[in-house]
Amino acid sequence: MRALYLGRFNPPHIGHQKVLEYILDQQDIDEIIVLIGSGEKAYSLKNPFTGGERVEMMTKLVQSSFDLSKFYIIAIPDINRNTIWPAHVIDLVPPFDVIYTNNSLVQQLFQNLSNKQVRETPLIERDKYSGKIIRNNIVNGKKWKHLVPSEVYSLIKKYGGVERIIALTVSDEVIE
Amino acid sequence: MRALYLGRFNPPHIGHQKVLEYILDQQDIDEIIVLIGSGEKAYSLKNPFTGGERVEMMTKLVQSSFDLSKFYIIAIPDINRNTIWPAHVIDLVPPFDVIYTNNSLVQQLFQNLSNKQVRETPLIERDKYSGKIIRNNIVNGKKWKHLVPSEVYSLIKKYGGVERIIALTVSDEVIE
Amino acid sequence: MRALYLGRFNPPHIGHQKVLEYILDQQDIDEIIVLIGSGEKAYSLKNPFTGGERVEMMTKLVQSSFDLSKFYIIAIPDINRNTIWPAHVIDLVPPFDVIYTNNSLVQQLFQNLSNKQVRETPLIERDKYSGKIIRNNIVNGKKWKHLVPSEVYSLIKKYGGVERIIALTVSDEVIE
Amino acid sequence: MRALYLGRFNPPHIGHQKVLEYILDQQDIDEIIVLIGSGEKAYSLKNPFTGGERVEMMTKLVQSSFDLSKFYIIAIPDINRNTIWPAHVIDLVPPFDVIYTNNSLVQQLFQNLSNKQVRETPLIERDKYSGKIIRNNIVNGKKWKHLVPSEVYSLIKKYGGVERIIALTVSDEVIE
Amino acid sequence: MRALYLGRFNPPHIGHQKVLEYILDQQDIDEIIVLIGSGEKAYSLKNPFTGGERVEMMTKLVQSSFDLSKFYIIAIPDINRNTIWPAHVIDLVPPFDVIYTNNSLVQQLFQNLSNKQVRETPLIERDKYSGKIIRNNIVNGKKWKHLVPSEVYSLIKKYGGVERIIALTVSDEVIE
Amino acid sequence: MRALYLGRFNPPHIGHQKVLEYILDQQDIDEIIVLIGSGEKAYSLKNPFTGGERVEMMTKLVQSSFDLSKFYIIAIPDINRNTIWPAHVIDLVPPFDVIYTNNSLVQQLFQNLSNKQVRETPLIERDKYSGKIIRNNIVNGKKWKHLVPSEVYSLIKKYGGVERIIALTVSDEVIE
Repeated sequence: MRALYLGRFNPPHIGHQKVLEYILDQQDIDEIIVLIGSGEKAYSLKNPFTGGERVEMMTKLVQSSFDLSKFYIIAIPDINRNTIWPAHVIDLVPPFDVIYTNNSLVQQLFQNLSNKQVRETPLIERDKYSGKIIRNNIVNGKKWKHLVPSEVYSLIKKYGGVERIIALTVSDEVIE
Repeated sequence: MRALYLGRFNPPHIGHQKVLEYILDQQDIDEIIVLIGSGEKAYSLKNPFTGGERVEMMTKLVQSSFDLSKFYIIAIPDINRNTIWPAHVIDLVPPFDVIYTNNSLVQQLFQNLSNKQVRETPLIERDKYSGKIIRNNIVNGKKWKHLVPSEVYSLIKKYGGVERIIALTVSDEVIE
Repeated sequence: MRALYLGRFNPPHIGHQKVLEYILDQQDIDEIIVLIGSGEKAYSLKNPFTGGERVEMMTKLVQSSFDLSKFYIIAIPDINRNTIWPAHVIDLVPPFDVIYTNNSLVQQLFQNLSNKQVRETPLIERDKYSGKIIRNNIVNGKKWKHLVPSEVYSLIKKYGGVERIIALTVSDEVIE
Repeated sequence: MRALYLGRFNPPHIGHQKVLEYILDQQDIDEIIVLIGSGEKAYSLKNPFTGGERVEMMTKLVQSSFDLSKFYIIAIPDINRNTIWPAHVIDLVPPFDVIYTNNSLVQQLFQNLSNKQVRETPLIERDKYSGKIIRNNIVNGKKWKHLVPSEVYSLIKKYGGVERIIALTVSDEVIE
Repeated sequence: MRALYLGRFNPPHIGHQKVLEYILDQQDIDEIIVLIGSGEKAYSLKNPFTGGERVEMMTKLVQSSFDLSKFYIIAIPDINRNTIWPAHVIDLVPPFDVIYTNNSLVQQLFQNLSNKQVRETPLIERDKYSGKIIRNNIVNGKKWKHLVPSEVYSLIKKYGGVERIIALTVSDEVIE
Repeated sequence: MRALYLGRFNPPHIGHQKVLEYILDQQDIDEIIVLIGSGEKAYSLKNPFTGGERVEMMTKLVQSSFDLSKFYIIAIPDINRNTIWPAHVIDLVPPFDVIYTNNSLVQQLFQNLSNKQVRETPLIERDKYSGKIIRNNIVNGKKWKHLVPSEVYSLIKKYGGVERIIALTVSDEVIE
């Protein structure tokens, strides 16, 4: 059975890695679609990395820990209409059976407006592994290397991600 | 003469009913267009109901208290450009002569950018009858049945509106 | 049971009237949603009338022949993505059970991507009653009054529809 | 009184120059807004030049023959909804009184949906001076230098416009 | 060399005038493109004036103090995707060499995603000359005439700008 | 070095497979991004398969013949503005160095508006291996199994692709 797992992954971190591990451990799950939301957003404090960069980072994370051939890694743009968002997702990824999410709105939408099964994921030390904490640590000059896989760390360095995020704290709108 | 009355109607309530009564009472008004704004927004705390659900609720409200043949009940999407919004409205509803609104921006736009007459509506116990109060009462487990017509109450129950709104308090964005 | 019937209705004509009659005659159908597609298109040869004008014409057609309280008459904009169009429709109209359409794509989309029942409508003298024929007759100065209900005829006259359509034959793009 | 004159200007040519001359010659016209439509379209056979390039070419044309301080030269994107297009235009240019156009749709829209005066322009040897003829001559290696002011000719050369248009004859869609 | 200078100019003021003076003073700069961002936004507290009004005000400001033939004054709509915004700008203005901006995001975007040179402008008494201060002074009935060139003052009066801004303090969303 | 290879892949076929082989054979190319254009289009004669289905088919094609870990397979939506399309592509895929394309517009755009290297691909029996031929063969009941890898054949069968394409020949617009 194919599962879909959703996030913004700005950046992908060890918490995500552990959730993927958990999902792959389920007896009835063979394959995972990792769906990167807000794929068209970038160079903002909340979404510093481009959709393409996040695809690359997630691919490297998956390659380092899992069998890549069990994964689809796909970024999609926001559509900004909740009620048609499930149809938007279903359109842009390969067919799937179950969606893993703790977001109560996503749960409602897929339950009310599609025929997909909805399951929750375990919470993996959310006060430690979170995109927001990592971005804040980068801004504040705190340690963050241990929160991401080493492949992701290298890519963030290569993208100039640290300088980018610090510049964004001064302004993250082109028209202020 | 045909009047236009504008709101989001999330949900339609007894305050709206009383304003419609007031407008129909005007000697020079024969027909009313009820214009449901933000018709494409739904499953959010501010706009929990779909455009289609709001059309249905408003139709039942009108049927129960007025002569339906005097009404047009129309939902339109937002266009997010104030200066062309009057043209957007005029495009999507039957011709009309006067707009009833207390919104000072809408008043300015129709006065400056169209040739429609603008009139104010009486304020009907705004601290009692308001969509926001009804949504808050639902969230907080307070009474709200007396604030909406019974037909609207039944439809909200049928839509699973109470469960929906409570779920939205946990999250109302698909990509958090 | 509530049925949805879809068209562009440029303009509504006697063929549409007969299809509505047929649908209402079905034992299991109580109410009809008349869905006006391409509601945001107007002042073109294919779609000369605005969404608002089409709502008004269809409402008058229904009022003259049927019990208006059994109808919802709703115009929606195009979304230009076939796979999410069923979700777009479902969002903008009251809940319904069955869709009446002879369009093979719409049939496929609702069968594959929603849980709505799909039914066909009878073809009512398509070589006589068709929006295209009416628009062509207007352009060519041929008779068309007998093809639309008298209420629709009056409204087209009131809108300046004949002059409008003739002007559109010269140009129907603002930027040529 | 301020006039608005509309075109796509791909590229601006001597026919346009003569029409501007004619409009400025009107006793009641002091200033002209030159409105460049489809400003967001470029690198296609119909619209080879960018909005920015067309602004530059038109500015140089005006500077060489007229008093620039009487002109506003503005490119706007298409909005693809005829009925709100006049409001879109009015929003994006300084206030004006009269629109010069021979397009029958534009005439209808401004007459029905705005309070602007509409006037026609003389036709200046349309079988000689036309954007389409110039683009075709470029494609077919025929003479076109005499059809545009020398400033425009120089800019087209500088943009690599000849090579661009020839490449577009092979393909003008990125996704074929 | 041609420079681009970016702002929202709601309204243009004496601070902008001084920056333009500074840029024109640079030995290597011959011409300036004044780029008006958020050109499609208007009738809001942050952007009270239309794109067209801002083009007119800026043109009058430039005419009164500089040689207009050295300027291009262009309003563009927002595109809401940071990473493609430099391409959007480059598409809609004549070719340029250097961008003057103090916005750190704009600096990053043009440095990372284009080949334009980036320079900073001096800060001209930002606690005195700022659009926000002018709009606030208008709202609060404080003096603001000395903060804008007299041509801009006259135009704001002519647009009914004072009444407009005061009305916007009551509401600046058509659908509240 | 990372290469980008672009197509619509409706469906992926043996011609694409051979081009991928050719690109991977280049000494300086290590990795390929397969970019699926018009990813949001589906259920039309030109684009019968969804973006998600095309990602799945292409992934299976790559898995069967190449080392998947050298590939990124990404579908992106059209943006309908040629001049910003290169920036759109660059935003949504991992960083790359060279684009392989025979489309002369794409070549121009990347040469003029980006700093990517452009290369041509060999033409692999275009009169045999082409999406259009495959879709036509399906419509006309001719053989097409030999034109696609067996994995792609199985998926098309599983999607109901044959029935879908045949239905689309009757109508491929929801609003006719």
